[in-house]
Amino acid sequence: MNKTQLVAEINKKQSFLCVGLDTDIKKIPQYLLKCEDPIFAFNKEIIDATAQYAVAFKPNTAFYEVYGSKGWYSLEKTIHYIKENYPEIFVIADAKRGDIGNTSANYARAIFDGLGADAVTVAPYMGLDSVEPFLGFDDKWVIVLALTSNKGSQDFQYLEVNGHHLYEEVLTKAASWADSNKMMFVVGATHPEELGGIRKLLPEHFLLVPGVGAQGGDLDAVAANGLNKDCGLLVNSSRGIIYAANDEHFAERAAEEAEKLQKKMSLNLIKK
Amino acid sequence: MNKTQLVAEINKKQSFLCVGLDTDIKKIPQYLLKCEDPIFAFNKEIIDATAQYAVAFKPNTAFYEVYGSKGWYSLEKTIHYIKENYPEIFVIADAKRGDIGNTSANYARAIFDGLGADAVTVAPYMGLDSVEPFLGFDDKWVIVLALTSNKGSQDFQYLEVNGHHLYEEVLTKAASWADSNKMMFVVGATHPEELGGIRKLLPEHFLLVPGVGAQGGDLDAVAANGLNKDCGLLVNSSRGIIYAANDEHFAERAAEEAEKLQKKMSLNLIKK
Repeated sequence: MNKTQLVAEINKKQSFLCVGLDTDIKKIPQYLLKCEDPIFAFNKEIIDATAQYAVAFKPNTAFYEVYGSKGWYSLEKTIHYIKENYPEIFVIADAKRGDIGNTSANYARAIFDGLGADAVTVAPYMGLDSVEPFLGFDDKWVIVLALTSNKGSQDFQYLEVNGHHLYEEVLTKAASWADSNKMMFVVGATHPEELGGIRKLLPEHFLLVPGVGAQGGDLDAVAANGLNKDCGLLVNSSRGIIYAANDEHFAERAAEEAEKLQKKMSLNLIKK
Repeated sequence: MNKTQLVAEINKKQSFLCVGLDTDIKKIPQYLLKCEDPIFAFNKEIIDATAQYAVAFKPNTAFYEVYGSKGWYSLEKTIHYIKENYPEIFVIADAKRGDIGNTSANYARAIFDGLGADAVTVAPYMGLDSVEPFLGFDDKWVIVLALTSNKGSQDFQYLEVNGHHLYEEVLTKAASWADSNKMMFVVGATHPEELGGIRKLLPEHFLLVPGVGAQGGDLDAVAANGLNKDCGLLVNSSRGIIYAANDEHFAERAAEEAEKLQKKMSLNLIKK
């Protein structure tokens, strides 16, 4: 998917919502456990219920790998289901991969060709040749970790280098490897003040913003600091939507939570 | 596996060789393609042929993920085969994972409980809570990326922070999270001079050293700079061993290459 298509979808739905499919078998309604593939059965209902409010889905690979090859199969089915039924929705494999070039090339094929995702999150620590293999696919995106939403973001990302923070060094250096048609950055919703500075540094790039909801980030503060002329934000919510209920009404309740966020997003888009 | 067991195996075999199982279907002997699972068939022969010279095997997850759920199944079978037949050999899942705590906990279960590996490589960028979930398993190890073997190691790892390089900050900070019975570090063989400084900084820790062979690192230089009283090194070779031949003699030829490295290692252990 290219940037024009993504922006068109945002404008059409008046939403920049990404629904995180961090599906945990211990948290889904227990009656689904009798299905052949409970994870996929759950995802399918969540996808159908929230697709009208969301412009992106983001399965996190860890939640599938934990079930081994069967889990990986559930992930394959999930992404194929989205792409077959909602081809206009952007799919992010939240995998945080990154290795030497030869190896990253395999991750890129796994995620873009194998899973069919539109984008992948990558860790920057190993530098350009660990990111480059992900850049060689038409209409596919690389989302580089810059300032993450977790407490551990304090450990290295705020270190002072070259007169600024390491995360700023990552942002500017990685942005020199690919433009805003191919690269996005992860910036946690738990850092709203930094978001304003990041938006000044990179006026064009989309930012994937996790951490709204369960992790405590505030949507309005994110929008106020992060929106640009194209919108430029994908704000993710996982647990707050997909686990809104864990009975037979879970999909309806997920849709309600997704709609609430979409309405808030719509107000912010109008304001801008 | 604990440190005493690992050191005992090193002493017994007079080897600190790790064989990297980066199995690429395009590089294995073509007659194996008629097997039901060519990747596993190849690995099985490589494992049986080289186990007497190696103290560790290191499958890189990218080379399995590229084949989707089937590839993940080949990886599961490979690690289970090693653990059943060579329980004394250390198995490293080279996965370079790392995410927020809640998610890293799933990666840890995937790799330690699901795959049954003894160790996993992790990326440091997201800090303590991204690494911590991997530390909560008895006799399991975390191997943190410090100074990687690739060209991209120049992009961020050598940045100056707090009067030293970022990789040194990673080494000292991460070493405060777990001791040398639970944590190792990745230091590429392509940086032999830095290896001496790293050994001074961390006299006790094992270092996993990739980059000997295809990537140009020199074993003797690594040994001269990196060995400690326990050995303290696991030197990995992948392509130089597993693709030594691609006809029906591939396993014998892999064994010969592994033996050559083991002999060199033995000389270095005696010298020390």
